[in-house]
Amino acid sequence: MARVVAILTDFGYRDFYVASMKGVILSICPEVTIVDISHDVPKWDIRSAAYLLFCSYRYFPEGTIFVVVVDPGVGTERNIIAVKTRKYVFIGPDNGVLALAVNSDGIEEIYIVENTELFLKDISYTFHGRDIFAPVAAYLACGVNMEKLGRKSGKIKEVFMSKPYVSSNGILGEIIYIDDFGNAATNIDKSALRAIGIDYGDRIEVYVGDRYYILPFAKSFGYVREGEPLMLINSCGVAEIAVNRGKASEILELNLGAKIRLKKYSQVE
Amino acid sequence: MARVVAILTDFGYRDFYVASMKGVILSICPEVTIVDISHDVPKWDIRSAAYLLFCSYRYFPEGTIFVVVVDPGVGTERNIIAVKTRKYVFIGPDNGVLALAVNSDGIEEIYIVENTELFLKDISYTFHGRDIFAPVAAYLACGVNMEKLGRKSGKIKEVFMSKPYVSSNGILGEIIYIDDFGNAATNIDKSALRAIGIDYGDRIEVYVGDRYYILPFAKSFGYVREGEPLMLINSCGVAEIAVNRGKASEILELNLGAKIRLKKYSQVE
Amino acid sequence: MARVVAILTDFGYRDFYVASMKGVILSICPEVTIVDISHDVPKWDIRSAAYLLFCSYRYFPEGTIFVVVVDPGVGTERNIIAVKTRKYVFIGPDNGVLALAVNSDGIEEIYIVENTELFLKDISYTFHGRDIFAPVAAYLACGVNMEKLGRKSGKIKEVFMSKPYVSSNGILGEIIYIDDFGNAATNIDKSALRAIGIDYGDRIEVYVGDRYYILPFAKSFGYVREGEPLMLINSCGVAEIAVNRGKASEILELNLGAKIRLKKYSQVE
Repeated sequence: MARVVAILTDFGYRDFYVASMKGVILSICPEVTIVDISHDVPKWDIRSAAYLLFCSYRYFPEGTIFVVVVDPGVGTERNIIAVKTRKYVFIGPDNGVLALAVNSDGIEEIYIVENTELFLKDISYTFHGRDIFAPVAAYLACGVNMEKLGRKSGKIKEVFMSKPYVSSNGILGEIIYIDDFGNAATNIDKSALRAIGIDYGDRIEVYVGDRYYILPFAKSFGYVREGEPLMLINSCGVAEIAVNRGKASEILELNLGAKIRLKKYSQVE
Repeated sequence: MARVVAILTDFGYRDFYVASMKGVILSICPEVTIVDISHDVPKWDIRSAAYLLFCSYRYFPEGTIFVVVVDPGVGTERNIIAVKTRKYVFIGPDNGVLALAVNSDGIEEIYIVENTELFLKDISYTFHGRDIFAPVAAYLACGVNMEKLGRKSGKIKEVFMSKPYVSSNGILGEIIYIDDFGNAATNIDKSALRAIGIDYGDRIEVYVGDRYYILPFAKSFGYVREGEPLMLINSCGVAEIAVNRGKASEILELNLGAKIRLKKYSQVE
Repeated sequence: MARVVAILTDFGYRDFYVASMKGVILSICPEVTIVDISHDVPKWDIRSAAYLLFCSYRYFPEGTIFVVVVDPGVGTERNIIAVKTRKYVFIGPDNGVLALAVNSDGIEEIYIVENTELFLKDISYTFHGRDIFAPVAAYLACGVNMEKLGRKSGKIKEVFMSKPYVSSNGILGEIIYIDDFGNAATNIDKSALRAIGIDYGDRIEVYVGDRYYILPFAKSFGYVREGEPLMLINSCGVAEIAVNRGKASEILELNLGAKIRLKKYSQVE
């Protein structure tokens, strides 16, 4: 059966990089189905890539091989790893970019990718996506056993992503991703909101930097009027600040990495 | 035989949204061929999406399933519909986005998509593209009968797109799409131009806002010199204002939705 | 066996153009695998397209059919050609866009594409990518013999790309591509650097316009500190000016087409 290879990079869509990887994959394993996750990860932004992988991987067919090339350390000392999880295989630099996804699905085996027989013959110093990641993924897709990749390893590098801090004063968290609509995703999930008694229909006080907003907590964009802000649980399961048919990141001046504090709004007489 | 599923959204290329839809589709129907129409429809712009679908659908193989997710009303009351036309199937929100294409190909049956057995088990409030549209398309691609989708319906919502108004004073129309080259497509087709006696080689007076241009009506860009404007019939069959190797929208200040009036230019002694 | 069709255009990702081509291809030859090389070639920039094709083609499976539509002369007199090389087939306008790739792989046969039986029935004046290039590629992918395309031809138009000039005063070259990371690729390959005695670990004097830089010549980005510039051999085999985790084109003010002069840096007491 043809396996799926899903690719996530910060290479952008203009250049020959992604196409070269696909050419290599199809040369080795012609029957594979290649899917692009995204190639517009903010350059060198390991955390955004980790978030995008985490939000998408579980929707792919069992056995999918994920190839992640957000690799600011390319050409220097850093391991390339392949991680077998409960349902998938992930290949990437060991810089934390795989951490959220593989921990979520459940790590079974970790290999250091070092068997040069599975690489292209000429390896550049700057494009391991094409010369190492792509051929390795293709060989796995066509049936090469993971044990052929190299040594087993015990653990992977974790990506920084602060957990929210919940206290009687509310929840302290941060903005971990801003999407193409300008929606600002936080590291605060629904259970954290419930822990401080917030439910749909409530209003939420949100402090970002020196600004302060009172946002309705609603199920979807259309529950508020056009141009109005709200908080919702996004399709990746985390609290998100949005504007109905508007760019929250611009309108409310929300930046990647900004700390936010939120609590239930109670009108006092 | 593997069917084609073609996807048109305003999700952009940065995020995990399109990839999640593809993962869902391939999980349900692995042998399908997925084609992106575009994911850079201007956000929430139903009319641009309707135009892009209309211009491209007829070039796809018979039986192609089109999935259109330009859906500003997601999570609120609006029907999701599936439309069987003469040669294709279209799935989208009933907000007019399918109208131009399905009317052009000929509507045979309309279904309200409401059979939750064909949806993902957990349905988010904000991402029906992944949770409803994608699995429904995949089931259809793999042979599920359209009658399984839900109730039959009698009509779809139409998208606003004014017809041009032809009089002795010329043609009144508007700019309905601006493409990546800066070409400005209008809602005026070749037969309307012929109705007022315009043919290739003529010059056309064009009034846009308080500006006024005399444009040659030519077959293609290269018929005028580099940097010069012209009017032509574009590859979707409508009159378009363009500049040879230039961005007409910037050079001539043309905006989406602008009204234009045009007539045949006759030099008077 | 399913063949690969790889597409390179300057159409962008917003419009219906690329999707229409894919629809046409899949209508004629459903079992083909379509790969996008890029659709964000700078508009009408034949040289950038030639570079992207040259850098990527050799990684594709033998027999891949490359379709290149960077075609400022569409609708006027210019031939469409199909070139059989040692391992591949290339289809494009005869404006030089294929030159670097086909010369590199080795030209075996050149055909003028003129058999209208292989075109769509209605041919627009502005979109030969859909109406001619796509169906011709699909017929070839599904086994039509190249001799059916039209007359044989003896040569193709060359694309302008100046060779570097090596003298005792250093190497004179130019910037031929700027990628999405802001890396500036030159037309100077590693053998030219070696010819003037430059090797990894050396420093290089680089003159661009009225500016002057001394850059370390390193194997990869990570050999210098974040924010620092360097010169390296890029993954296409040419000398490139880069900044570790930064945009060299902006930081060092490097423009496409700029002349550069470089020589080995020797510190004098």
